[in-house]
Amino acid sequence: MSTAKLTIDLGAILTNWRRLNSMGPSETGAVVKANGYGLGAERVAGALASAGARSFFVAVAEEGPAVRKVVGHEAQIYIFSGHMVGDTQYIQNHDLIPLINSVDQLIYHVELLQNHPFGIQLDTGMNRLGMEPKEWQAVRELALQLNPKLIMSHLACADDREHAMNVEQHRLFLELTNDVAAPKSLAATGGILLGKDYHFDLTRPGIGLFGGLPFEEAKPVVSLDIPVIQIRDIKAGESVGYGNTWTAPTPRKIATISAGYADGIIRAMGSNTSLYSAGIQCPVVGRISMDLIGIDVSELAAPPTSLSLLNSTQRIDHLAANAGTIGYELLTSFGGRYKRLYREG
Amino acid sequence: MSTAKLTIDLGAILTNWRRLNSMGPSETGAVVKANGYGLGAERVAGALASAGARSFFVAVAEEGPAVRKVVGHEAQIYIFSGHMVGDTQYIQNHDLIPLINSVDQLIYHVELLQNHPFGIQLDTGMNRLGMEPKEWQAVRELALQLNPKLIMSHLACADDREHAMNVEQHRLFLELTNDVAAPKSLAATGGILLGKDYHFDLTRPGIGLFGGLPFEEAKPVVSLDIPVIQIRDIKAGESVGYGNTWTAPTPRKIATISAGYADGIIRAMGSNTSLYSAGIQCPVVGRISMDLIGIDVSELAAPPTSLSLLNSTQRIDHLAANAGTIGYELLTSFGGRYKRLYREG
Repeated sequence: MSTAKLTIDLGAILTNWRRLNSMGPSETGAVVKANGYGLGAERVAGALASAGARSFFVAVAEEGPAVRKVVGHEAQIYIFSGHMVGDTQYIQNHDLIPLINSVDQLIYHVELLQNHPFGIQLDTGMNRLGMEPKEWQAVRELALQLNPKLIMSHLACADDREHAMNVEQHRLFLELTNDVAAPKSLAATGGILLGKDYHFDLTRPGIGLFGGLPFEEAKPVVSLDIPVIQIRDIKAGESVGYGNTWTAPTPRKIATISAGYADGIIRAMGSNTSLYSAGIQCPVVGRISMDLIGIDVSELAAPPTSLSLLNSTQRIDHLAANAGTIGYELLTSFGGRYKRLYREG
Repeated sequence: MSTAKLTIDLGAILTNWRRLNSMGPSETGAVVKANGYGLGAERVAGALASAGARSFFVAVAEEGPAVRKVVGHEAQIYIFSGHMVGDTQYIQNHDLIPLINSVDQLIYHVELLQNHPFGIQLDTGMNRLGMEPKEWQAVRELALQLNPKLIMSHLACADDREHAMNVEQHRLFLELTNDVAAPKSLAATGGILLGKDYHFDLTRPGIGLFGGLPFEEAKPVVSLDIPVIQIRDIKAGESVGYGNTWTAPTPRKIATISAGYADGIIRAMGSNTSLYSAGIQCPVVGRISMDLIGIDVSELAAPPTSLSLLNSTQRIDHLAANAGTIGYELLTSFGGRYKRLYREG
């Protein structure tokens, strides 16, 4: 068994959800798009539903059925991309709620699924998804008569508390939804942390559930242990890995571990990354390759059989920073070879 | 249907395999580890077996069964990580051939599967996998009596034709396998391109099959088309995407497409990347997000319904360079949401 072991702590996800839920009186939903941020949409959504979450969000209609299977018939499942051509059967058969992004989508939805619930996504300045204020003005009266389940928008800069864009999007969202009776939603994890003014009726945490920034108090959710294939002694002056990018300054003990960038260990995190054995740091040496990484284990008293890349000390945002990216990308890059173990709450 | 369409040209893979096969008289195998470099091990290995490939390579024993299912009982399936604790049942039940990397693995294999075929991996300087010359010296006589199916090593710098390491590893491989009757293998794609001296009895192309460098003459294998969710007009001075990193210099038309870094569109490739519509370049604007990317489609005459990220003009190595990485990582990062279409030869 030389595949690595990715342990996903469902209990920690629930703790994070409850902490975010305790920050205000609004309903707290859960974003489980991209296969539950790479951790398994069914397991994650199922656990959250058992803990009381009733509103789930996916990116595309094709992600809906797996979530519906585990959250029961009462829960709401919203689709951020709205109602696209070809989505109608998914939406109808699995009782999904498209978040309508444009007048075209609104017409399409009403033509094909007249009495099927929908929500409205408004653009308040991110220019990514949602109706522009002018579009909304044109169809607002008609749309509201059809009784939307939710009116939402998304913040572009909420990970930065001080960004002026937050206040501006909040102001515009209030203006666009003035006198609207439908439930409203503006905040994902970053927005929740901006305070109750941003919460409205329903919040939509994603990354915070999974232990990532900007939710600094989040419990870590994932740990990753990688088997050692073999250990060798090398002399000073010998190189390790592709392109001879690392040369031993002194005699060293090098372990080859069985994981690489094909498993989502982003190649760019390279040799400023360490793995751990009982608290002792063991640095990556040489290039990360597709299925293998060289690790300097000279400091360990005994030869390790596995090494830890993610744990309560070294978390997703730490590795992401090593790779010049964000924790979100690290999570969603986890590959298909891991042996996934779920720890219940 | 807002998931993107990844088209995998099995015919191009076979063309690439045949071209590499035509470079010398040796047998040409195929490396299909990491789920066939992200393209689907079963489809890829099945096609290659039909075309005549008889030797396949995977990284870990757990990858063996999927390949065995499609390549028939006569083909050889080698495991680079060798015989690890827990692998025995896989090796026996699916008739896999571990490439033994250490004396420990050799003892383990002989104890548990005395008459089961194995190969030997030698380290010739990469210090990643394989027996060190001294280990080999110690067990060589015993190992050769057991009739290994293959003796192999791996080049650390073969992508760089001029690298002195190539000659040095070649020399050492010859020395270590002097007078050995078993079939020998040293070259992956880069090694094949170094010339027949490097081919020995069996070559092991991987990346070259899948259209990537260093095989410059490779036919492109993958194309990727991403649906447009909506298109909006923005004014000069408006921003797009997270963190307001891009601001429109003039009025622009922005399409939001339905794919992102969760699909393996590496976030670091960012805004020096373009998509294509009928040959016209449409630049990425703002940050790539998890499921969505903003694209400037102002130059198009008509609103597109999808845009092409990978095609015969813009290939994996182009995108990889934009992201500061290599084509190999781009391929193995492709996510699970794509609709995968296989084009037969």
